[in-house]
Amino acid sequence: MSPAAQSENPDLKIAQAATLEPIGDIAARAGIPDEALIPYGRTKAKVDLRELARLRGDVEDSGEHRLVLVTAMSPTPAGEGKSTTTVGLADAFTLAGKRTMVALREPALGPIMGIKGGATGGGYAQVVPMEDINLHFTGDFHAIQIANNTLAALVDNHIQQGNELNIDPRRMQFKRVVDVNDRALRSLVIGLGGPTQGVPREDGFDIVVASEIMAILCLATDIHDLRQRIASVVVGFTYDREPVTVGDLKIEGAITLLLKNAIDPNLVQTLGGTPALVHGGPFANIAHGCNSLTATRLALGLSEVTVTEAGFGSDLGAEKFLDIKARYGNLKPDAVVVVATVRALKMHGGVAKADLGAEDIPAALEGTANLRRHVENIRKFGLEPVIALNRFPSDTEAELEAVLGWAKDNGFRAALSEVWAKGGAGAEDLAEQVMAAFDDGGDFHHLYDPAEGVEASLTTIATQIYGAERVEFEGKAAAKLRTLKKNGWDTLPVCVAKTQYSFSDDPAKLGAPSGHVLHVRDLVPKIGAGFVVALTGEIMTMPGLPKEPAALRMGVDEDGNAFGLF
Amino acid sequence: MSPAAQSENPDLKIAQAATLEPIGDIAARAGIPDEALIPYGRTKAKVDLRELARLRGDVEDSGEHRLVLVTAMSPTPAGEGKSTTTVGLADAFTLAGKRTMVALREPALGPIMGIKGGATGGGYAQVVPMEDINLHFTGDFHAIQIANNTLAALVDNHIQQGNELNIDPRRMQFKRVVDVNDRALRSLVIGLGGPTQGVPREDGFDIVVASEIMAILCLATDIHDLRQRIASVVVGFTYDREPVTVGDLKIEGAITLLLKNAIDPNLVQTLGGTPALVHGGPFANIAHGCNSLTATRLALGLSEVTVTEAGFGSDLGAEKFLDIKARYGNLKPDAVVVVATVRALKMHGGVAKADLGAEDIPAALEGTANLRRHVENIRKFGLEPVIALNRFPSDTEAELEAVLGWAKDNGFRAALSEVWAKGGAGAEDLAEQVMAAFDDGGDFHHLYDPAEGVEASLTTIATQIYGAERVEFEGKAAAKLRTLKKNGWDTLPVCVAKTQYSFSDDPAKLGAPSGHVLHVRDLVPKIGAGFVVALTGEIMTMPGLPKEPAALRMGVDEDGNAFGLF
Repeated sequence: MSPAAQSENPDLKIAQAATLEPIGDIAARAGIPDEALIPYGRTKAKVDLRELARLRGDVEDSGEHRLVLVTAMSPTPAGEGKSTTTVGLADAFTLAGKRTMVALREPALGPIMGIKGGATGGGYAQVVPMEDINLHFTGDFHAIQIANNTLAALVDNHIQQGNELNIDPRRMQFKRVVDVNDRALRSLVIGLGGPTQGVPREDGFDIVVASEIMAILCLATDIHDLRQRIASVVVGFTYDREPVTVGDLKIEGAITLLLKNAIDPNLVQTLGGTPALVHGGPFANIAHGCNSLTATRLALGLSEVTVTEAGFGSDLGAEKFLDIKARYGNLKPDAVVVVATVRALKMHGGVAKADLGAEDIPAALEGTANLRRHVENIRKFGLEPVIALNRFPSDTEAELEAVLGWAKDNGFRAALSEVWAKGGAGAEDLAEQVMAAFDDGGDFHHLYDPAEGVEASLTTIATQIYGAERVEFEGKAAAKLRTLKKNGWDTLPVCVAKTQYSFSDDPAKLGAPSGHVLHVRDLVPKIGAGFVVALTGEIMTMPGLPKEPAALRMGVDEDGNAFGLF
Repeated sequence: MSPAAQSENPDLKIAQAATLEPIGDIAARAGIPDEALIPYGRTKAKVDLRELARLRGDVEDSGEHRLVLVTAMSPTPAGEGKSTTTVGLADAFTLAGKRTMVALREPALGPIMGIKGGATGGGYAQVVPMEDINLHFTGDFHAIQIANNTLAALVDNHIQQGNELNIDPRRMQFKRVVDVNDRALRSLVIGLGGPTQGVPREDGFDIVVASEIMAILCLATDIHDLRQRIASVVVGFTYDREPVTVGDLKIEGAITLLLKNAIDPNLVQTLGGTPALVHGGPFANIAHGCNSLTATRLALGLSEVTVTEAGFGSDLGAEKFLDIKARYGNLKPDAVVVVATVRALKMHGGVAKADLGAEDIPAALEGTANLRRHVENIRKFGLEPVIALNRFPSDTEAELEAVLGWAKDNGFRAALSEVWAKGGAGAEDLAEQVMAAFDDGGDFHHLYDPAEGVEASLTTIATQIYGAERVEFEGKAAAKLRTLKKNGWDTLPVCVAKTQYSFSDDPAKLGAPSGHVLHVRDLVPKIGAGFVVALTGEIMTMPGLPKEPAALRMGVDEDGNAFGLF
């Protein structure tokens, strides 16, 4: 939630009032030739990946292409403003004369209709056209959904039409998805109605951002890598417990065909005129939580500074960016921004949401325990963190000074960020701190070596990043460890599905818990994506709608413009 | 199926080899100003509806805007080539120097992946870019799907969150949809897993072309009409059997917002350079089976001749075009083309599909009974039909001559159409016959007056068009007649869901059956769309996949081009 949600929700109004540059001009400024641009309306375009191939040499052999990753402290209902900070920081680099690009995830429609409203930054730090990006955009999520669901239908059809591959309907692993928060689809029985209506089995739908196809699209280097990854997806197991892949079904070609445009990154702009690639959006718990690798690499090739974002806190999105995406994409970040707010610090310091309006410096300082853990986590990757203290209207000067003072006293780079109100001009100091950090953080390395096995990798993440004492494999997880080893999947990177609200697997444990046990209840091989998901706690892969969904306030006015979308 | 399916499937190759004009040039030739054009890539665009409003006066006050409807005899597995004929005829008008536009339905992805391959015409009579139109296009079907499913999720959420409207979960009427042929979703139980997972109930998914939202989008005159129609959708009934509408749930704004771009018609081109509007695609049995009203009206306003198509035969798509779409859109067709093939005639004359290769003039003449009924049906609307005999490679000259001779002897206009092989040049004679028919068919009228009630309307359609003796209301249908009357829905037009293979409700009765009884087993109010669906026989609203789905042969080659899509 941006500060907008506190005041009068002017994000949509600011976005609608902005004069956007034609996308061809944005592309030209980014150095994208017109032949590589596929326009979607006047202010959106896809960039042809052949352009990326032409640029790839530049990306890999030059020190002029800086990569800044934006993460945050553990999220709270008070809001952090991570996308807002990412956009504002990029605009600050643009103001400073750097050729800059921003690379962000695409918003998912389900949450927009449910609770969030739009997800494209806020105030004067937004990517635009805000309405279009939040509603359908260039159709990537729709393509992923239908690719996912066509795949699922082809699997059930195989079972129905004789089941030559001997697939066990009780051991299916690939679910259907929708881009809707629809709790009634979490758990269902399909294939009812008799022998011509399919084979009855238990099933459930996930939201589209939880689809393995989404993760694959975001980690694939090109369409051929995409095809190979899709062929590797494990859809289930035979009655003999052997894995069945998409390749076994010979349908990877059709599924790739459905994604051939979706893999091209989408170009838009920020309110500050910075070219922005908004592409892909995997969940940051059940998946790796970053925009597409193709977009990040394109941005790197085209700019002096690329600012990108990973989902949730350093324990989730950033760890996965650095251990999964950076590994598959051969990326080397130069600095990491950790977004914090006084409000979130106060909540981690024990203040209830209803009481956030009152100044409470001791609570804010108490909450720095959470922020400290995130900052120190980043240093474990050999990178220099910079704290961005994202100003909210309700913050007092004394609170802001106290937090910045704490950072200084502890030797952490920090800067006040006022991008919501001021755009790029509100992050000049932050941009300077980030540039200084470029020189300090030259020792990037991954946290663990997947070759040591999933158990070792998980233990390293849990103890080093979460502050846990150890990992316990409960229920199915112990047996699944054996399955991983048997099938040669034990040396894949690990993607932990954990609550975003706590370093532990208990969302109620705010601050910086330590000495706890990480309970792993299942291990799910996502061979196409190239990681093993470790499920901890209760992870929701299909959210529900609230009693008063955001949809109730949305509509189209007499002139055909959106309202209620913020 | 086009003749391509008989030979070497060169449709995709022909389409890929074509040099397309930039969509801006096509728009300029059609008289669409650049400001009203929203490009989607270089060869597709949406046309802003405000442009339609500017043109509406022209549409209504001039005789220079001719509307040609293309329908067909009862479909058989032998194929008819109705879209191919529609496109080729339009190109023939273009060749003849007429300002021409073609208005077609968008293809649905589910059938493409299942049996059909692409659905954009064939040979040298195609709309292009063929790959894009068949795969996602401008995202309309995806938008309809998510609008439909967001609506459904909001309804189930209402029930879950206290059910203030007292909705009876056993009397729900609005289903979720996917654009996938997925039989396993036909019949299922949702909401399982306990009190936080929703309210368990029986449900089922339809394919997206069967969605009432699809029908609404295709009958709405503008976005405000769209909103009102969505508000009128009956989602189910209360425990007191009172209808519950989308308006009662106050969610019509959000659903309209999700469709605000989808309502704009899509502009592409034919291989002959004719501007083509390809927009919307409701089923021709459970819904009315025509492209959007907005596209048809835009085409009419911009051209001297508009060629459009309705699904299946004269008994389904054409009857609904003339009684439903023409009524809501105030359209007055000038001529109707009835597509026939020797192969289909032979099947209606009793020849099995495997034996179609052999010349069989008696069977072809026997099959003209089916064609005669369709042609005579068109005259019942005061319109002059023209038979287009669509040539297939296996047809013999003697067979073609026999059928054309039969037409001449019976006083029916007819012409050989060779558009698959020759493009517009293959329909010069057909175009001339159609122009001659303009002068003969000046007495267009609807078949029935909805004010007389659903029972009377149905009886008129069944006896006049289907050759039935009478209508029987079975099972739920009799009770539903009373529900319609009670709720004031009895004076809506009727949309019959009937097998496309026969004039009767029994798909095995080929030719021209008469004296049969039309069995109506249910009546479903589609108040948003503005019609009552009469269900007869077994109507499938969710197809299944065959044992060897078309998807198995599809893919993307080394250069990123599609293959296997025809």
